[in-house]
Amino acid sequence: MHYAPYTHEWYMHKALQQAQLAFEKEEIPVGAIVVMQDKIISRAHNMTEQLNDVTAHAEILALTAAFNHMGAKYLPDATLYVTLEPCHMCAGALYWSKIGRVVYGASDAKHGYQHFFGGNNAMHPKTEIISGILANECAALMKNFFKAKR
Amino acid sequence: MHYAPYTHEWYMHKALQQAQLAFEKEEIPVGAIVVMQDKIISRAHNMTEQLNDVTAHAEILALTAAFNHMGAKYLPDATLYVTLEPCHMCAGALYWSKIGRVVYGASDAKHGYQHFFGGNNAMHPKTEIISGILANECAALMKNFFKAKR
Repeated sequence: MHYAPYTHEWYMHKALQQAQLAFEKEEIPVGAIVVMQDKIISRAHNMTEQLNDVTAHAEILALTAAFNHMGAKYLPDATLYVTLEPCHMCAGALYWSKIGRVVYGASDAKHGYQHFFGGNNAMHPKTEIISGILANECAALMKNFFKAKR
Repeated sequence: MHYAPYTHEWYMHKALQQAQLAFEKEEIPVGAIVVMQDKIISRAHNMTEQLNDVTAHAEILALTAAFNHMGAKYLPDATLYVTLEPCHMCAGALYWSKIGRVVYGASDAKHGYQHFFGGNNAMHPKTEIISGILANECAALMKNFFKAKR
């Protein structure tokens, strides 16, 4: 699939490539990237199994790598793309980061921060939220993963 | 101050010692320890300034060290002691860890998970929550920190 460069779909496809890597390592397939001024400054996928650490979600790893790259702990000019709606832990991390924008793919009816808190917004009030980008592709990867696990 | 061994106050005092280390490094003074079968398996303090990483809260660092120590990503038989009410990011991390018990000291009216979500419980339903242990001491350290910063 080809997407026009620098579009949300184009970046989400990069996050999906990270999710695909997770899938191949038998991790729940969630991928994330952080973008600043049209440049990808970090890429990560879920590593909870490999690291034996439930905090090693794609978003946390991508944020930490972005902080390291920038030498800064706030990212008001950055966008995080993630294939799945963030959980409340990751929403909290994004809140603290003061990130400018969060773009996610598939919704997560069970653990997504919006569902978990009944629509309560756990992100920073200045953070723009965009959802549903390549949602079907992101959700399909998750479904295939859990189907293969059964 | 002396506390009877293995009491909540005794363990919270150990977490406070971590918070004191944070204070001395000009970090917001929050400390945490993880205890299993009367043994402290990890100790950590807030390192957001030093690491330039807003996810480096005491709870996250203490959990990650405990996962490493145990070689396991769930901690149903462990207790985390933390000097301040966890934020929603840390509540999320504790949720995923399925930790048996969380004991915290001072409440955090601004960023504590209970206040942030209007009483909504962000922890795992099986996690026992105990609050207010050495609350005055934990709060005093925070107050002194922010007073010194002014």
